[in-house]
Amino acid sequence: MAQNVYDRPDFFAGYAQLPRSLHGLAGAPEWPTLRSMLPEIEGRRVVDLGCGFGWFCRWARQHGASHVLGLDLSDKMLERARMLTDDDAVVYATADLETLSLPDRGFELVYSSLAFHYVEDAARLYATVHRALIPGGRLVFSTEHPIYMAPSAPGWRIAEDGRKTWPIDGYFREGRRETDWLAPGVVKYHRTLSTTLRLLLGAGFRINRVEEFCPNAEQIAANPNLAEEIERPVFLLVAADR
Amino acid sequence: MAQNVYDRPDFFAGYAQLPRSLHGLAGAPEWPTLRSMLPEIEGRRVVDLGCGFGWFCRWARQHGASHVLGLDLSDKMLERARMLTDDDAVVYATADLETLSLPDRGFELVYSSLAFHYVEDAARLYATVHRALIPGGRLVFSTEHPIYMAPSAPGWRIAEDGRKTWPIDGYFREGRRETDWLAPGVVKYHRTLSTTLRLLLGAGFRINRVEEFCPNAEQIAANPNLAEEIERPVFLLVAADR
Repeated sequence: MAQNVYDRPDFFAGYAQLPRSLHGLAGAPEWPTLRSMLPEIEGRRVVDLGCGFGWFCRWARQHGASHVLGLDLSDKMLERARMLTDDDAVVYATADLETLSLPDRGFELVYSSLAFHYVEDAARLYATVHRALIPGGRLVFSTEHPIYMAPSAPGWRIAEDGRKTWPIDGYFREGRRETDWLAPGVVKYHRTLSTTLRLLLGAGFRINRVEEFCPNAEQIAANPNLAEEIERPVFLLVAADR
Repeated sequence: MAQNVYDRPDFFAGYAQLPRSLHGLAGAPEWPTLRSMLPEIEGRRVVDLGCGFGWFCRWARQHGASHVLGLDLSDKMLERARMLTDDDAVVYATADLETLSLPDRGFELVYSSLAFHYVEDAARLYATVHRALIPGGRLVFSTEHPIYMAPSAPGWRIAEDGRKTWPIDGYFREGRRETDWLAPGVVKYHRTLSTTLRLLLGAGFRINRVEEFCPNAEQIAANPNLAEEIERPVFLLVAADR
């Protein structure tokens, strides 16, 4: 079972204060890119793996999805999602992405935002998602970038010449990483970029797009903290078609 | 025109002493992976972009390629290649990858080892290669990994806790990088991983494989210097199909 850190009071309290929690999709700077990778969703069936407060589920319905299933491991997140949603075509349920099962060919779109890096068995997950899509259906997901996840002691360092740098090590030592983010001891699983693409291709997907989030000038002007995201990739965004 | 650093005496003298120059493909630790990405070449037409001393051209003929064209910007490299090759079905010619032209649908395989990072206009190059392949033909290439190329001052640093790290900066500042490798002032062009894949997809390619070179235990035992390649990716290897 994946670690359920979102239900820990300290983590949940911190998470609930993030811009993306307070402001939904508009608070996530990578959303415009992720959105551009989505297929037409009017009349389509959508599942969101790691739906959190349900921001994307509600957005999908507002844009015409016929049915939306939001799955999350955290009961606290689902409770908040249900509170924020008044729509019978959106259903929330508890699910662990490590042991996920989905109906065969049940969806035109499988979406996931920043959840897959908590999953240890990505091969199983991708195979499950592939079966759950109709032929021609699409998986669109974001995940922490392997360059962000790899280091044994992730963080910015100032070089001798004053440059802000992100020192990498252990890129090819895949597997468990324990970091402190909002709460101590958050467990994630590092995979190289080639492993992610190899597993997707191996599951039968065709790679449609691969993007790395980079803030634009307007976003940096509005939020100068984003400037450091120019220095190293923080999120990997993938669209893959069955 | 791409910089012709290989014809500079200081660079050429250094290059000629590299294991991959002295021992050919067996001296290139990424070769087993790159080889595994090749299609069947028995009876096929092959072009090698940046053929150097012609090691791959001769290998391709030994493995049944019907015709092999080796292109390089460096006359010194081509001179050595011709000296090492005794085979009328292997033709060497001077070409600049910035202004390359190739016959339409002239090849089943376009191969390139560690040359594309010298090219500024990758979109033009990929479009040229796509047209030069028959439908179903494959481009297989290696290039310096964007994580290796990105830093404004590339190099290893020892962290406070003794870890060997590769500090990244400027990942999203694409374009010209000038480094000292074998000779001062070698010019390369950094592109993010997403740019490389976006340009390939945009040219009409289907992504077949994406690999990042990582030495195996046997290679490290034979050459302990390779151990550091575990810490960050040095080469990106791509197979893409027309």
